[in-house]
Amino acid sequence: MKNIKLTIEYDGTDFCGWQKQIGLRTVEGVLNETLTKVLNEEVEVIGSGRTDSKVHALGQVANFKSDTPISLDRFPRAVNSYLPPDVAIISAEEVPMDFHARYDPKRKTYLYKVQNGSVCRPVYRNYAYHYYRRLDEEKMRQALGMFVGEHDFKAFMSSGSPIKKTVRTIYKAEISREKDLFVIEVEGNGFLYNMVRRIVGVVLEVGSGRLDAGEIPEILKEKENCRTRRLAPPQGLYLKNVEYEV
Amino acid sequence: MKNIKLTIEYDGTDFCGWQKQIGLRTVEGVLNETLTKVLNEEVEVIGSGRTDSKVHALGQVANFKSDTPISLDRFPRAVNSYLPPDVAIISAEEVPMDFHARYDPKRKTYLYKVQNGSVCRPVYRNYAYHYYRRLDEEKMRQALGMFVGEHDFKAFMSSGSPIKKTVRTIYKAEISREKDLFVIEVEGNGFLYNMVRRIVGVVLEVGSGRLDAGEIPEILKEKENCRTRRLAPPQGLYLKNVEYEV
Repeated sequence: MKNIKLTIEYDGTDFCGWQKQIGLRTVEGVLNETLTKVLNEEVEVIGSGRTDSKVHALGQVANFKSDTPISLDRFPRAVNSYLPPDVAIISAEEVPMDFHARYDPKRKTYLYKVQNGSVCRPVYRNYAYHYYRRLDEEKMRQALGMFVGEHDFKAFMSSGSPIKKTVRTIYKAEISREKDLFVIEVEGNGFLYNMVRRIVGVVLEVGSGRLDAGEIPEILKEKENCRTRRLAPPQGLYLKNVEYEV
Repeated sequence: MKNIKLTIEYDGTDFCGWQKQIGLRTVEGVLNETLTKVLNEEVEVIGSGRTDSKVHALGQVANFKSDTPISLDRFPRAVNSYLPPDVAIISAEEVPMDFHARYDPKRKTYLYKVQNGSVCRPVYRNYAYHYYRRLDEEKMRQALGMFVGEHDFKAFMSSGSPIKKTVRTIYKAEISREKDLFVIEVEGNGFLYNMVRRIVGVVLEVGSGRLDAGEIPEILKEKENCRTRRLAPPQGLYLKNVEYEV
């Protein structure tokens, strides 16, 4: 028996998110179904965490235990030929038997892409948030800086989450720009439900001049998400990678 | 009566190309239908040239004559709200009555994107050609350089084109790389049917070591496309822009 860690990329456009749900097309559901068929044994992968409908992943991580004789360097190719083209296994490696993708992540990184301009560009429509108000990159950088460090992010969590401990540490929150496309990168030791999309919502309010970055510490102190109602939409979000202690 | 020049972006994935065809979803067909409805007058746009099924455009150009009272700076927004999200008008401007999008182009630029690696990445599957053999950037740069200048590109034209004059001038043919994505940019005074995709096909043969760049002048001298059979697939191609004499 081996414990196998998969790194997975998917285009979230046509998936109802990660988590399996009866009657809906989800990444977890498609992976379980395909792996069960290809390996000819019942497979249920454990993901590092859920992603919502339309959210993408460049480096989602999942693990499962198996007796498969397929060598792990040939594993991605063998399985990818049975997976639909909007999800692929990037790599597979053997990990210690106690490795658990959901409980053990030490660090996650997300990207959020914003297309800024008057017209919603067709080639980005499923891969970025079209924001038409003019954005100030420097103001957004300032806003992002306010989130770095350890904070209670309760005000940045969507309801419906059973999580009790809401303190998280953000290691990095940066922004870069290429022409009309802004890319925000946020790295932390963990994220609450919708936390990145709520941070981006506030950063865009600052970038468009409707909120002062100096107000962010106050917003962070609130214990309800009353002022962080603006939730950036899912299609701009990418789970970039998940890191574990080696 | 005004002559209106439109700059158009589209995601070619779900279009059967530019040119209108009965019963098929094409960019020209969708534009004619939408403009006719919005302007309440029969509109038939003239495009700078066709693009094939799955080929994208960042700056396709078309023109049409109209009596519309809609001001041209508000025109894109007014029409885009009626267009499907995979095609959008980026800008509209009034041009002299004798401007003709198809006959007058002085210069066109295409991009071709290649994703190089062992796995076909889901987020690029409709936006780049997945090429799994290792590519040498410097060799590809050398190969591209061989196409710059005036050449008879008869051997790089797919059959089915009625074109008789096959001499074209390439002003620029460059390559850049970001991680696993190569972007080839080719600018010329005109392009034959499938010419960019056939040039890319040869460049990839050189990049993967199966052809020597030094053989390209010989291939250019051939009068049939026997050695340029390798036609790079459509989803990597983008019509970047079309320039006219001012």
